[in-house]
Parts: sequence; C-alpha cells; structure tokens
Amino acid sequence: MSSSDDYPHAPKFTNRRPDGDLLERSVCERCGFVDYQNPKVVVGAVVLQGSKILMCRRAIEPRKGYWTLPAGYLELYETTEEGARREALEEACAKIEIDRVLAVFSLAHISQIQVLYRARLADPHIEAGPESTEVGLFGWDEIPWTEIAFPSVVWTLAALKRNWGKDDFAPATNPPEGAFAFPPAGPPEV
Amino acid sequence: MSSSDDYPHAPKFTNRRPDGDLLERSVCERCGFVDYQNPKVVVGAVVLQGSKILMCRRAIEPRKGYWTLPAGYLELYETTEEGARREALEEACAKIEIDRVLAVFSLAHISQIQVLYRARLADPHIEAGPESTEVGLFGWDEIPWTEIAFPSVVWTLAALKRNWGKDDFAPATNPPEGAFAFPPAGPPEV
Repeated sequence: MSSSDDYPHAPKFTNRRPDGDLLERSVCERCGFVDYQNPKVVVGAVVLQGSKILMCRRAIEPRKGYWTLPAGYLELYETTEEGARREALEEACAKIEIDRVLAVFSLAHISQIQVLYRARLADPHIEAGPESTEVGLFGWDEIPWTEIAFPSVVWTLAALKRNWGKDDFAPATNPPEGAFAFPPAGPPEV
Repeated sequence: MSSSDDYPHAPKFTNRRPDGDLLERSVCERCGFVDYQNPKVVVGAVVLQGSKILMCRRAIEPRKGYWTLPAGYLELYETTEEGARREALEEACAKIEIDRVLAVFSLAHISQIQVLYRARLADPHIEAGPESTEVGLFGWDEIPWTEIAFPSVVWTLAALKRNWGKDDFAPATNPPEGAFAFPPAGPPEV
C-alpha cells in the first residue's frame, strides 16, 4: 500500500491543446509533461527456406490456435531489422537473415503500423518458442489458409508471391478495401 | 490545485517484468495497467515537382533555421500515407500525391523509425506553414547541403537520387556507419 507521501508527486493530467499543437493531448498540470500517444510499430518477416515459408501457430490470444508470421511490437532502442530478427528467434527459435522490405501496412483503426521484411533462414533449426504451439515450413499451396490469424498475414503472403524472385520491387502497402477475403478459402489470387 | 480526492485514483507505478514478458515495464500496482513504451514513427516525403525537391526551413527547434523535408510524428488512427500528406500540408501548405516507399530508417538511439515516401506536388502552390520560415523547390545541385537539419535528410535525398526515374526499387534502409558525412560539404556521392 502507499502512504500519503505519494500524493504531491502524483501526476494531474487534463486534456488540452498544448501551445503550438493542433491536437488535444494529455498534459500534466503539475509539471507540463505532455503524454503524446502515437501509433505502435509491429515488425516481422516472411522467412524463407528455399520456397517454403516459416509460420507459427499462436499459443496466445488474440487468435490463439491460428497461424501467423513471426512478428511483434518493436521495442525501445531497437532497429526494425533487429526487432524482426528478435521476433523470429522468440516465436520460432529461428535465426534469420533480413533480405529487404516487403511491406509497410497501416492498421489505422488500431493505431498500428507494420513493417514486414522478406528474410531467409540462416540455420535450418526451428522450434516453437513460448508464444507458439507449433512452427512449420509451408509451400504456397500447403499454407493453412483457412486458419490464418490476421488479414495482414494474407496481405503479406500475397506481397511475397507477387514479388517472388524479384530483387527490386516497391513494398506492398494497404490493399484496396475488400481485395482479399478473410478468412481466405484458399490461396489468394495475386 | 487539487484536493485529496485525487489521491485514491492516482496510479502507482513500479518497474517489473509482467508475467509472460521478457522486459521490465512500468506497471500500475493499483490496476495492473502496463505502460508499454515503444518507438515512435516519423512519416514524411520527398516531394517532387519535375526534378525539383520541396524543402522547408525550420522555424522551430531542434535545428531551427536549417533545411529539412516535410515530416513529423504519425498521429493515432492515421495511416503512414495520411501522415505524410498531413505533414506536407502543415509545413509547406503543399498538396501531395504519394508515389511509393522511398526509405525505412531506424534511429534506434532515439527510439524513432522513419517511413519516407517519394511523392509529387499535386498543386503548384507552396507556402511556409507555422513550423517553417521558408519553403522552396531545389534542383539537386541547388539544395542547401551545408544547412541540412538532420543526417536522415541526407540519407533520404541520397535514396531519391540513387533510384531516380525507377519505378521498382528496394527502399533504402540505414546506411553503413560513416557512409555520409554530416553536415555535408556538398551533394553526397550516390
């Protein structure tokens, strides 16, 4: 429990527009601190071994039991490439080499942006980490399409397929509304 | 001032590793809220009119008086493209059309990632917004190279030049340490 000593140090936030700003923010009226809230970054990778794609079955909510690509929130003081490598290691015990940017998506409704890389397995060993129940390498037609965790996983895989074998390509951005059915009935047309 | 009524509602944060997490976070021991801190996203654009590049002279710190590209923090519920368009409008009263992703940089030491687009002016009107003292359109050799605000502006302009006239190219990522002098003495070699 706490003592009344805590009281004079407690922040006292109100919502107002700071000087020179265009939007309302949460501002501490005791110290002037502005608690800027901004979108978060998810980083991940489509990891290839030859023509097979590394996927992970989620051990945690949301979408527990469904298949995804290794990806997660970027941490402070991390590059996007470091974050993508860390997530592959955490979720699939996979050591990867980043190839290039495959996609930059914005999930504006949840204030999330996703930076996805194309990568390759640097070592053949893969194994489920604590956030996965199962990991596997799938050919395009072997992907468990009907059990995909999130729409952006489909968008990412479609971007991979569209640019298969290419070195120079523009990264995918958000597809037009309705371009891909979710959940998919099978491999998307790309 | 505040009354003692504020006290029981004040958060009480301690630093500890939440269950299932690998890192220490700031956790409110009253309600269990985890105050995740993550890198912030800066979005911006190299805006072209023909072969001229839109630049803005900063009216605000940091680097007041130096030249930059229209860019700034992505806001909640915004796509990266919307953010880049908003920043061009705020800083240079410029209406732009996004072309494609030009660069994805990580400034890990300040927990910032930057997503930069190649874009074009949709309307010839440009004018300094409140955060700029001056805006201008510069040919490559006319850019005020010795008065550039930030190293990543040089990296972005180099990426533009390297991919000049190309539709399909891999976005630039962080250059090797020391690849570009800063401040530059003149146009970088690309």
